[in-house]
This record gives sequence, C-alpha cells and structure tokens, in this order.
Amino acid sequence: MSKSVAGPEIEKLIQLLARVPGLGPRSARRAALHLIKKKEQVLTPLAEAMAVARDSVTVCTTCGNVDTRDPCTICTDPRRDNAVIIVVEDVADLWALERASAMNCLYHVLGGTLSPLDGIGPDDLNIKSLVERVSAGGVKEIIIAVNATVEGQTTAHYITDQLDGLDISITRLAHGVPVGGELDYLDEGTLTAALRSRTTL
Amino acid sequence: MSKSVAGPEIEKLIQLLARVPGLGPRSARRAALHLIKKKEQVLTPLAEAMAVARDSVTVCTTCGNVDTRDPCTICTDPRRDNAVIIVVEDVADLWALERASAMNCLYHVLGGTLSPLDGIGPDDLNIKSLVERVSAGGVKEIIIAVNATVEGQTTAHYITDQLDGLDISITRLAHGVPVGGELDYLDEGTLTAALRSRTTL
Repeated sequence: MSKSVAGPEIEKLIQLLARVPGLGPRSARRAALHLIKKKEQVLTPLAEAMAVARDSVTVCTTCGNVDTRDPCTICTDPRRDNAVIIVVEDVADLWALERASAMNCLYHVLGGTLSPLDGIGPDDLNIKSLVERVSAGGVKEIIIAVNATVEGQTTAHYITDQLDGLDISITRLAHGVPVGGELDYLDEGTLTAALRSRTTL
Repeated sequence: MSKSVAGPEIEKLIQLLARVPGLGPRSARRAALHLIKKKEQVLTPLAEAMAVARDSVTVCTTCGNVDTRDPCTICTDPRRDNAVIIVVEDVADLWALERASAMNCLYHVLGGTLSPLDGIGPDDLNIKSLVERVSAGGVKEIIIAVNATVEGQTTAHYITDQLDGLDISITRLAHGVPVGGELDYLDEGTLTAALRSRTTL
C-alpha cells in the first residue's frame, strides 16, 4: 500500500475504487481525484446512483437477470415472444444479446458453467429452474447461447440432456467468421466451422 | 446510447460510471454488473465511501490539497519542514511526490498552468496565495515541480518573477534520464539535459 497522503476517507475511497473491474490501484487514485474535484457533477450523482442500486437492485427469480423489479422488465414485457428462451451464462451475455436487438424473446441466466475442477456442479447453476420453466409449457424453442468454451459446451450438452423428452427445439448459436473479422487472425477451429456452415450467395 | 436492458436505475449507474476516468461505456457496464453482483462486498462500501467523501472532502485553503480537513493533514503535520514548499500543478502531482517520500516538506497546488490560449491567466491559478505564503516569512526554499511542458515552464518563470526580491532560493526538478529508462527511447532534449547535468561517479 502506498503512503497515505490525503486522510483515511480518501484512501478508503481509492482502495474501494481499485476493486472495480477496469480500474487498478493507479487508475483508482486518478478516478478518486477526479470524483473529488468534480464533486457536484460526478461524485454526488454517482454516490446517489450507487445507493439507489444498492437498495433497489434484485435478481429476477424467473430468469436470473438483475433489475430493480422481480420479475424483471424483460420477463414482464408483454411485447416479447414467450415461446423462445435464450440460455446464457451470465447477465453480461444477456445484456450483449439485448444490445444486438436480434431477438425479442425471454432469457434464462445460468450463473456460470459446469466446471467440476472448480467444484461447480448442476445444482450450483440455474438449470433446475430452466427445466421447470420449460416443463410449465408454452416454450417452443431454447437457444443455448453459452460461450464457445469447453465448459460452455459441456453445460450445453448437460442442458440438452435435461430437456430431453420435452416437445421443444433446442438450438445453439452459429459458429463462423465474426462480422468485420479478418480470416488471417482467426483460429483453425473457427475457419473449419465457417467452411462447414457455408451458405449460398 | 445503447438499448436499455435493465431498468433506468442501472442504466443511470452505467452512464455515471462511464464518466469515471479509466472507464469507458463498455467497461462501465462491466463495472456496474460487478458492483451489482457483489452488492455486499463492493457496492455497499463503495457507495458509503463516496457519500463520506462527498460530505467531508474539502480543499485546503492554505495549499490547495484535497483532504477531509482544512488546513490539510500535510499543512498541519508538525514533523514537516515548514521552510520548504514544493509548487505543483495538480493534487495528483502532490500525491505522486508524496509517494516518492523523498522530501518531508509542504506543498502549494497551483490548480493548473498558465495557458493564454485556454484563457487561463495568473488570477485563475493559486499564485497570489503562494506569494502571500512566502511573504509571511519562514520559507527558505521554493521547489517548482511543474511538468516539463511549455506551459509548465512558462508558469515556472512567471512564479519566479513574482517571488523576485524575496530572500528565498527558487529551485526546479532536475532533468535527466528516468531511473530504469533506456537511452534509446529518450528524446534528444532529455539526453542533452542529462549530459549537461552529468555528475561525477
């Protein structure tokens, strides 16, 4: 820890800011100074927004999204297609897919992936609640949008097994060349997948 | 602005986090999610530290440092050498010099540098208060530790002029090769200065 230069209150603010992802010890100091200098414009509204988030943000018991209400804004949106559920690992993935605005459906946040080495089994993820949601009826398609990692694919297979026997279609995201991506920088696995799934022009 | 996915309270938190230096729109979203997920461990203490900083942090009327008391911890520290004042542009420079722990003296924060193009004149900086501090007596040395930029050097000359006639020595930081620096990457100005100020081994 560096020498304290500005009283324990500011040092504490710096230490806590350093725990925010994207900020390290050095940038936390810079951020703290900026916040203090822009007390009215930045520090005060940010402190208030954090207090509001602390008091009001909750996890949706239906889908696992974070929101200020439960069920969340997405689950209660009447304009969404209730027949399709996209299964994601994390809320960040849900947000990313929402930003893409490609689908107007529901989500289910697993809260991670199966990882026996880290001691994460099926009971640690929101898999049971997914099976219950689907079993309750009305769902026609489950899009498994987990990351293209070993753990993600293992989890996808496990979920497929659990949903076996239910009258729904289970799909996954397509593999291929990212839009704007250069072939030269892509790995062989992606190129192979892109070639296999080639489409007619 | 991206599509709102998680209620106005969270969107507001993301927007405000994006104004913290070191965080952009993308990392602000990641930071907000992390804060919400670690509500007890990170969000709550950070919100409290910000509220404390908002309510208690002030600017030292003597030196311009930010602290929770006025005069600040440094100005009231009885173990410091009151005869030496280091003049810096910004509180961040004060913190940097304090971390170096090379001197145990007082500071004077200018709050910027003279910059006619940006409309910053002598009255916009804490120069008058510096002259008053020195005129009050007891000060033997002023170390001008402004940045080695054109504006910084202009400011240094202006301050030297203002302090003219007072019985004090005015010094500046040495120019030279940064410790651990490689000559190959240094500019000609630095190398010339380092050669001119060479010392006997």
